[in-house]
Amino acid sequence: MPTQAASKTLVRADDLRALVSGIFAARGVREPDADAVADALVWANLRGIDSHGVSRVPRYLELFDKGESAPDAVPTVRRPRAAIAIVDAHGAPGPIAMNRAVTEAVTGARECGVGWASVRGTVHTGAIGYYTSQAAAAGMAAVGVVAGVPNMAYTGARGAAVATSPLSVAVPAGRHGTVLLDMATAVMALGRIAQLKAAGKELPPGVAVTKEGDPTTDPALAAVPLPVGGPKGSGMSLVFELLASGLAANPIVPAFHAGDRRHRQNGFILAVDVSAFCEPAEFAATVDATIDAIKALPAAGDAAEVLVPGERGRRSEAERRDAGIPLGPKVWRELAGAADSLGVPVPDPAS
Amino acid sequence: MPTQAASKTLVRADDLRALVSGIFAARGVREPDADAVADALVWANLRGIDSHGVSRVPRYLELFDKGESAPDAVPTVRRPRAAIAIVDAHGAPGPIAMNRAVTEAVTGARECGVGWASVRGTVHTGAIGYYTSQAAAAGMAAVGVVAGVPNMAYTGARGAAVATSPLSVAVPAGRHGTVLLDMATAVMALGRIAQLKAAGKELPPGVAVTKEGDPTTDPALAAVPLPVGGPKGSGMSLVFELLASGLAANPIVPAFHAGDRRHRQNGFILAVDVSAFCEPAEFAATVDATIDAIKALPAAGDAAEVLVPGERGRRSEAERRDAGIPLGPKVWRELAGAADSLGVPVPDPAS
Repeated sequence: MPTQAASKTLVRADDLRALVSGIFAARGVREPDADAVADALVWANLRGIDSHGVSRVPRYLELFDKGESAPDAVPTVRRPRAAIAIVDAHGAPGPIAMNRAVTEAVTGARECGVGWASVRGTVHTGAIGYYTSQAAAAGMAAVGVVAGVPNMAYTGARGAAVATSPLSVAVPAGRHGTVLLDMATAVMALGRIAQLKAAGKELPPGVAVTKEGDPTTDPALAAVPLPVGGPKGSGMSLVFELLASGLAANPIVPAFHAGDRRHRQNGFILAVDVSAFCEPAEFAATVDATIDAIKALPAAGDAAEVLVPGERGRRSEAERRDAGIPLGPKVWRELAGAADSLGVPVPDPAS
Repeated sequence: MPTQAASKTLVRADDLRALVSGIFAARGVREPDADAVADALVWANLRGIDSHGVSRVPRYLELFDKGESAPDAVPTVRRPRAAIAIVDAHGAPGPIAMNRAVTEAVTGARECGVGWASVRGTVHTGAIGYYTSQAAAAGMAAVGVVAGVPNMAYTGARGAAVATSPLSVAVPAGRHGTVLLDMATAVMALGRIAQLKAAGKELPPGVAVTKEGDPTTDPALAAVPLPVGGPKGSGMSLVFELLASGLAANPIVPAFHAGDRRHRQNGFILAVDVSAFCEPAEFAATVDATIDAIKALPAAGDAAEVLVPGERGRRSEAERRDAGIPLGPKVWRELAGAADSLGVPVPDPAS
């Protein structure tokens, strides 16, 4: 168990889930939906992705206040053809819409072998690996993409041009846990940059530029994150916007550059039914053998061991389920404050 | 029109296509298939991706000689569910198998909204943007991935661990041409590194490591290309192997690390029928507006203009259709030599 800094509050996952669900329910999110949002956020904390976890609760409340998200919105679904669905979120919080997309994509894949569900007009979706890993638990290989408001550089252009749109791919395994890739198209995820900025820590080189577009490692001057691999990262972000927002008929990038700065997101989930291709046990054995081959490679230079995507997160999850989730003072204060003002009971810390 | 180095031979695209098709036909590839392979390779040259063009012809002939590719193989297709197909290439050259996958994926998408076609056991597929752009011409948004024999580093491990597996995404536009992303998961595509090595030119930093895993810019010492964005690039390559090879039940990575070094590739094409989501004209207008917004951004520092994926290739294509395709002396000598030995007429250069 890692030593937590003295200023961190350790909260048990179940307690944190109940707290966050209570806050959302008190703000008008329907009962099962409030649990669903809480589960998605706490999952991110369990997996060690604190930037996408319960620290985002105040932002959801702010979006409710501003009318940019509707706490009680019920997504509607169109299924124009057998393998595709369009989930219109009507401004519902991301996890509500994305969970529905997982269900719809899996339904399409069970019938047709592959299923696609677009999500239109939601807000913060959290860590998208949550959604693809749910599809993987249903025996699917899954791809998830989310597009949002521009906050990243586009190679060759000045200023924020496209979003740090993440890509997640989940592949079910056998002995090993699900292979779970979850990556921003930026060199460094925005949430992580924000953490370093908040801590006043220097950024690694090549991560961000200033407002004027000059490279910087100064957290105070860093304004725009850079795309991973230059034109590769900004190209991925652009095509993700076209696939997520274009197919959902809710374009964000052109609206943003015409002056519309409202927060909103679109996305999609693709599910591929492994059992339609081969015996799931045979597939699981292939995935396990591939992971075994990678992990048996000699570690490079300073690496202690060779890791596959999702492995670090799974370890964090086991550790934090046991020890509790460490929350920084600002996050804990904001959560407890929101709970108090809404009459939601605040749990005792785990230690 | 750019000035060509004196040592380059300019060949008209149609002449080059006929030459390459003639070589393949003389080596036993069936008539329409020989044209298809030639078209895919010449397309890469037209688009300026010379590393994936007709310079690969000798490699195909070598694979025929070694029995690792079957020139007259006829792919077989299983369609276990309505939206998915598995194309077994039986060792047919990549373009033959991948073209079939495009047809099958588009068929699935027309019926179900989205279609997936896996390709099992082919060889060199060339530039995969060729296949996704064909799907885009049929009104589809398309994703293409190919997995092959490990030739790239995996972050944290020493030596070649995974393949530089490319990702291509094509999205049909309106006034603008198809948005066409086609990227290796390596910082620099292997073909481009080989070109620099052949020219004895220094590599940019961060592109490759030595056999021992040390960073190098020396083309003579560079042995293993690095993945783009470290764990992002190697993670993408790993999940692409699982999606392409795992679903096709033809794993390459574990076989390679167990000592099987045979050349082979698997892949998949995903087609999404735009017309199932919205009016194609509305979608095209969205894509055009997004491209307009990006291209209207102020250019950064030393960039002359802001480009979108596929734009540079389209310009090259227009230029080279007009002026001819410049081939280096080694490539031209090998092609002409192969043609001579097979009794295939060699065209006159364009100039």
